[in-house]
Amino acid sequence: MNAEIIAVGSELLTPLRQDTNSLYLTEKLNELGVEVRFKSIVGDEREGLVAAAKLAMRRSDIIIFSGGLGPTEDDLTREAVAEALGLKLNRDPQLLAKLEERFAKRGMKMSANNLKQADILASAAVLPNTLGTAPGQWISGKYDGQERILLLLPGPPYELKTMFDAECISRLRAKIPPQHIARRILKIALMPESQVDARVSPLYKAYTDVETTILAGAGEIQLHFRCRKPSQSEAEARVEELAGKIEDELGDAIFSRKGETIEQIVSYLLQMRGMTLAVAESCTGGLLAERITSLSGSSRYFLGGAVVYSNELKTQFANVPKTLIDKHGAVSREVAAAMAEGIRKRCLSSYGVGITGVAGPTGGTDQKPVGLVYIALAGDEGTQVVERNFPGDRKRIRTFATQQALEMIRRALL
Amino acid sequence: MNAEIIAVGSELLTPLRQDTNSLYLTEKLNELGVEVRFKSIVGDEREGLVAAAKLAMRRSDIIIFSGGLGPTEDDLTREAVAEALGLKLNRDPQLLAKLEERFAKRGMKMSANNLKQADILASAAVLPNTLGTAPGQWISGKYDGQERILLLLPGPPYELKTMFDAECISRLRAKIPPQHIARRILKIALMPESQVDARVSPLYKAYTDVETTILAGAGEIQLHFRCRKPSQSEAEARVEELAGKIEDELGDAIFSRKGETIEQIVSYLLQMRGMTLAVAESCTGGLLAERITSLSGSSRYFLGGAVVYSNELKTQFANVPKTLIDKHGAVSREVAAAMAEGIRKRCLSSYGVGITGVAGPTGGTDQKPVGLVYIALAGDEGTQVVERNFPGDRKRIRTFATQQALEMIRRALL
Repeated sequence: MNAEIIAVGSELLTPLRQDTNSLYLTEKLNELGVEVRFKSIVGDEREGLVAAAKLAMRRSDIIIFSGGLGPTEDDLTREAVAEALGLKLNRDPQLLAKLEERFAKRGMKMSANNLKQADILASAAVLPNTLGTAPGQWISGKYDGQERILLLLPGPPYELKTMFDAECISRLRAKIPPQHIARRILKIALMPESQVDARVSPLYKAYTDVETTILAGAGEIQLHFRCRKPSQSEAEARVEELAGKIEDELGDAIFSRKGETIEQIVSYLLQMRGMTLAVAESCTGGLLAERITSLSGSSRYFLGGAVVYSNELKTQFANVPKTLIDKHGAVSREVAAAMAEGIRKRCLSSYGVGITGVAGPTGGTDQKPVGLVYIALAGDEGTQVVERNFPGDRKRIRTFATQQALEMIRRALL
Repeated sequence: MNAEIIAVGSELLTPLRQDTNSLYLTEKLNELGVEVRFKSIVGDEREGLVAAAKLAMRRSDIIIFSGGLGPTEDDLTREAVAEALGLKLNRDPQLLAKLEERFAKRGMKMSANNLKQADILASAAVLPNTLGTAPGQWISGKYDGQERILLLLPGPPYELKTMFDAECISRLRAKIPPQHIARRILKIALMPESQVDARVSPLYKAYTDVETTILAGAGEIQLHFRCRKPSQSEAEARVEELAGKIEDELGDAIFSRKGETIEQIVSYLLQMRGMTLAVAESCTGGLLAERITSLSGSSRYFLGGAVVYSNELKTQFANVPKTLIDKHGAVSREVAAAMAEGIRKRCLSSYGVGITGVAGPTGGTDQKPVGLVYIALAGDEGTQVVERNFPGDRKRIRTFATQQALEMIRRALL
């Protein structure tokens, strides 16, 4: 079966915003064995939406609209799809009551605009939205003699993902013949893409029936493998065989074997060993703590930390001697080490991390250029410090530095 | 004039890759006064490409294809456009000679596949590619009685950008009547989209010549205005008039008048008043510090802060009395206030922020459900605390909480 995704919103036709919902939907559809054949982006204008809906109904088995279900004048997906398919829109009294209740709960009066969010296409099933006011809609049936499934989903990514997972996947699975696809993701930290590719391409090129994709991010390379076979065990055997060879080649440079993030791996290792962590950050400004605490339950191993932007706070919160800063400068191997050791001592944690550097774009000098970062890890076995010159802009340098810190923690815990 | 961008390539229909060329092209087209009305992504298959080309020629003045000009079997853009427009493809002997020379220079033999890269649509002008083997093509003329411009550009972003800048912009400028576009962006924090829309839609609806777009994020609404007129001053006058009315209506709920981020506004206000900031974060885990320090130069007003995940650290770094935590719990109005006051005292900053709450998805109780967050701001004028129940997942709750803190700082500084 083939799918088509239509992202709705004039903002997606500006240089400022990009449709990302389709990436998530494509991943989930691929897992169901459905290929996405077309994607399009249409602005908030009825005529264009009607044309897109008609074209999609002619050529695709599954059509997913994302966006345009809000309460404003601009939100036209419902109306346009009704016109394109020749279906009536009916106001659903139950939905209306729920909308009113939602507003009442927050002590707000529902505005007249919101009424149209209770308009449902004739024959559609309502997909409840637990996170927002726009319900989704599901239609399945014959259209010009062809079996079609049409989905209207809300535009905000967290609403769309939650609704798709909860309401759409099982409904789709019931309609789609079972497929057999195996996938694996391996991730490698802080190795250049060309170096990874030089080592692994002789291996994956020998597996023409496994689709291999290499993705490169700041301090992270991902290898994606995908194989489709008449049976699940055949598909898995091929993917496992190739992944196994690549694991042998790259060894412990691979931090993730099942697609886990490096935060998840560090979390797992810390908990397994009953160890705790505290961090003192200067140039990364809280990004490392933010990444670590992005996981629910991180309070079990992450005690906390300090964002010590000023020299005074480096002394006050991370016990860095003022004389050390005066002698070596705030951006130095010695201060990074002292930050890691100091925050570890202050928080009584198993490990302490210290990061100091120049994230730019301003503040660089000849001796200490933008991108220079020291990352230190202190533990029972002593303190290690690495010096790195990271490329890219402020955001990329900060991401690289936190990635380096996470990789150092991971390797220390192995 | 309206444009349509068609990105070609099956890899752009996977979960792993995204078309980014269209963002660049949109920016450049907007500068020329051209609106992008549709974008679509089509795989490497002839039938889909022919249909996309035909549809685009019917509805858009300027049609830009990116990708599908390479030498492989999969590269079908030339052939599909020739079929859709009923044009012949002619092999260009000059291009062929250049291609051969390019390969010879590198000591390589040209493969038979590459021949088709010299195929040019009848009536097309060749756009030289200084960085790769695929030349671009430019066609302009009547199609079904309508004036149309059709561009074929290579897919690799650096080739496309170089070619578009060098070969296409001046050609387009010669064809497009001079355009005058004015734009404005207003941003509002922590007001529901429907409430903003109810207040401003009577205003913007009276300006049918100004295109208004409402974007909603976690705790932020953006109003984008765009107007096209025969002269720049007319366009600006209309946008300014409408924006002025909306500014009158929403007053200081608007935090940004020129598209600045709330971090930038807070940065500007703190510097203008010579004030400094420190933060103590629990459930946001460093996100507030990270947002504030994402700006270069933030060390001028941001002293630092503490990520106090554990109760011990709330006491140690933010001076929160242990008895207060025992009495009210870590997630409470009183602890948030004590965190803000304590971090302010410890850092000797003008303002201190304290955030404590339940970001979820685990850790919620009946009394203290997921989404409950207390945000406190302490300053010379005393301490204020707000209690909020934010909707959404962990990421969204954390974003909302930091947005609320930034908005409180902004209002205190007004």
